Amino acid sequence: MAVRNVTLEKTIRKLLDEKKFQTLRDILVTLEPADISAVFQEQDEERAPLLFRLLPKELAAETFAELEPEWQELLIRGFSDRELRDVVSELYVDDAADLIEEMPANVVKRVLAQADPQMRKEINEILRYPEDSAGSIMTTEYVSLRPTMTVKEAFQRIRQTGVDKETIYTCYVTDERRLLGTVSAKTLLLQTDDSTPVSEIMDENVISVHTLTDQETVAQMLSRYNFLALPVLDQDDRMVGIVTFDDAMDVLVEETTEDIEKMAGMLPSEKTYLRSSAWDLFVHRIPWLALLMISATFTGLIITGFESALAAQVVLTAFIPMLMDTGGNSGSQASVTIIRALSLGELEFSDAPKVIWKEIKTAVLCGVALSTLCFVKIMLVDRMMMGNTDISPLTAAVVCATMSVTVLIAKLVGCTLPMAAKRVGFDPAVMASPFITTIVDALSLLVYFGIASALLF
Amino acid sequence: MAVRNVTLEKTIRKLLDEKKFQTLRDILVTLEPADISAVFQEQDEERAPLLFRLLPKELAAETFAELEPEWQELLIRGFSDRELRDVVSELYVDDAADLIEEMPANVVKRVLAQADPQMRKEINEILRYPEDSAGSIMTTEYVSLRPTMTVKEAFQRIRQTGVDKETIYTCYVTDERRLLGTVSAKTLLLQTDDSTPVSEIMDENVISVHTLTDQETVAQMLSRYNFLALPVLDQDDRMVGIVTFDDAMDVLVEETTEDIEKMAGMLPSEKTYLRSSAWDLFVHRIPWLALLMISATFTGLIITGFESALAAQVVLTAFIPMLMDTGGNSGSQASVTIIRALSLGELEFSDAPKVIWKEIKTAVLCGVALSTLCFVKIMLVDRMMMGNTDISPLTAAVVCATMSVTVLIAKLVGCTLPMAAKRVGFDPAVMASPFITTIVDALSLLVYFGIASALLF
Repeated sequence: MAVRNVTLEKTIRKLLDEKKFQTLRDILVTLEPADISAVFQEQDEERAPLLFRLLPKELAAETFAELEPEWQELLIRGFSDRELRDVVSELYVDDAADLIEEMPANVVKRVLAQADPQMRKEINEILRYPEDSAGSIMTTEYVSLRPTMTVKEAFQRIRQTGVDKETIYTCYVTDERRLLGTVSAKTLLLQTDDSTPVSEIMDENVISVHTLTDQETVAQMLSRYNFLALPVLDQDDRMVGIVTFDDAMDVLVEETTEDIEKMAGMLPSEKTYLRSSAWDLFVHRIPWLALLMISATFTGLIITGFESALAAQVVLTAFIPMLMDTGGNSGSQASVTIIRALSLGELEFSDAPKVIWKEIKTAVLCGVALSTLCFVKIMLVDRMMMGNTDISPLTAAVVCATMSVTVLIAKLVGCTLPMAAKRVGFDPAVMASPFITTIVDALSLLVYFGIASALLF
Repeated sequence: MAVRNVTLEKTIRKLLDEKKFQTLRDILVTLEPADISAVFQEQDEERAPLLFRLLPKELAAETFAELEPEWQELLIRGFSDRELRDVVSELYVDDAADLIEEMPANVVKRVLAQADPQMRKEINEILRYPEDSAGSIMTTEYVSLRPTMTVKEAFQRIRQTGVDKETIYTCYVTDERRLLGTVSAKTLLLQTDDSTPVSEIMDENVISVHTLTDQETVAQMLSRYNFLALPVLDQDDRMVGIVTFDDAMDVLVEETTEDIEKMAGMLPSEKTYLRSSAWDLFVHRIPWLALLMISATFTGLIITGFESALAAQVVLTAFIPMLMDTGGNSGSQASVTIIRALSLGELEFSDAPKVIWKEIKTAVLCGVALSTLCFVKIMLVDRMMMGNTDISPLTAAVVCATMSVTVLIAKLVGCTLPMAAKRVGFDPAVMASPFITTIVDALSLLVYFGIASALLF
């Protein structure tokens, strides 16, 4: 997907230069809010308010919700109170709450002053919930029906209140805010008798989440059940809002990006790459780099400890990178697979024995294949082709034996650490390649020198 | 999210043992198809048909669509023709096409024999498209309206045809299968005058995809625009189907898992971890392990080339793992960030100069910080605490200079290779940690021995 449309950006810049506002407007109204916001953010900052004012009210609010926080702030600072009110009143409550969270205090004050009292109340309710909770990503705007309503009355209510709701396709049947059931617009539409009471056609098997449920769990539930929205209940089991599928999709993408960043030894960042400065990147990357560099002291100590042995058999040094890399790669294959399965909910801690046994079998297969290949390679390439006669078949055997043991250790460490992390409530994603590589490096060197001492010296 | 519900699995096993079928049925009908299928797959195989027969028709079909292919095959082999017809006729066309793709030939023949001629035609149409294309994941069941219909007539049509459609919430206005616009059920419901023609209220700015568009692109578009469905057009721009958001969510999750697997040096697998045998894991993991092991020959050769120098300064060997690991980690941080940004469409090849410049700045910051820290660590820990007087300040300086250069090389290789891969049409995800580590290892050793030769020997 070409998220950036360079041709369109150029056309719009040209039309702005030529002050062809009518043509510009005609083009903009045919676009989706996500595309308009992308194009806006490629223009010069001082032109943003001008461009924004060309949009009709509803499209303007939708586009506003898609903009990056710095652009939202820029626009708000240029808005009159009247313009701000127009935008705020058109925003969905969850988008308004997101906005409030991102803006500096003085902007927040202006925004809240322009929101109507009901909206202000709802925004404040959403803001009460911790970041990454269902409460913080829900919207309080949903269609609620009473169980005693008929299908006809339900449609009347949808018509009256639906225009401001984020979805009207799932309606929630409540009594004093207790959730009794759900009824879809499809079910309502397919009813032939419009005097049927809602209570007769509603689905009473409702799956709901709590305000404090983790947002990733909510997103995975929406994805698992193919729902358009999930109802959110408070601590007293009263319905307070819904999380819609589009927000869930965003959460899934964001959380996966975070996992990937952690797996590569970075602190997760909320900014996209192009919006991160070199300093941002540095701050997110240096902690793990430094920590892992320091912990490599152990591998250094191990080598120093065997220094005299190495001086006698310098040829052994040449195989250290290969052994370390193969160990690291084997370990990260296992850890990354397990981390992903854990985060998709395919694995539980109780599966650990099965996982460990499977990894042992895989490690044996990989170990045998790799050490056979390695032996052939050392004898053919290193000894015969390169003519390095320091390498005896016994040396090759030491390397290959180390290889097998290293692969086994790597796969075991790679699969157990993430599961153990999950068990004690840590984030398994941190137990990925860099971390495991460091551990496996030290262990594989110990094995290497251990086997070498026994056989060669 | 607890995808597996161990308590529920036990309860159901117990009820089955006690032959309490009525109770069992009462429990099953309250569950979602995704949960029922999960519970089924934890029971003994021979009980599957029995359990399945307890479900009411529609729920049975929905559950069937959620099952793993091996369980679907198991059930089909136990079905009478009549039972098979019931299930097949309730399936959505896209699920039926998925089924056909997974089953062996004799099962396919039976399934197609039980599908009605129209469905058979539609299944065959979907099967014509290449794997991973929009055509292969679309469904041909959507609500189409004519532009001349009134709102009232539109509702009549939805009522008549909607029950079999995967979504009725976006309706497609077509004329001889040419897509003229879309109209949402919300727009239709909120109309006060039901004699308004559809052509007046439809949205003519339709975003569509082609049958051959990559499924990942389709999924990202749905996520970007928050649509419930995207229309799919054939080569002659005639509408042939829709892709719905729930299938898009599945695609996003699958494609990300594939990317993660590739980034960790594995061939992507379609099976979940628990369903993969040790042999499956071996087959997916060994190619990259073997390839990377063989390519470590170069690092070995470099060390061998400097063997005599190393023999004189064995202390240099102790720092090889730290330098290699830091290089590998620095490179994978950059590559993984770039790969993710590319796959989310945040970066284009044209951004390459910006990216490279940003990585250079980040590398300088990281390099300065790491080498300072490294110098202090070597002098304090290795020289003073460990009493290793072989390590002179000059040795430490050689290590730290190598560190800075290595980090720079690693970040540059890490950011350019994925972008170059994207440019020439390869999958950037393959250019991740393992691959880059191998390249960076060789380069960093060359730098190390180069600097050491200049300053120490």
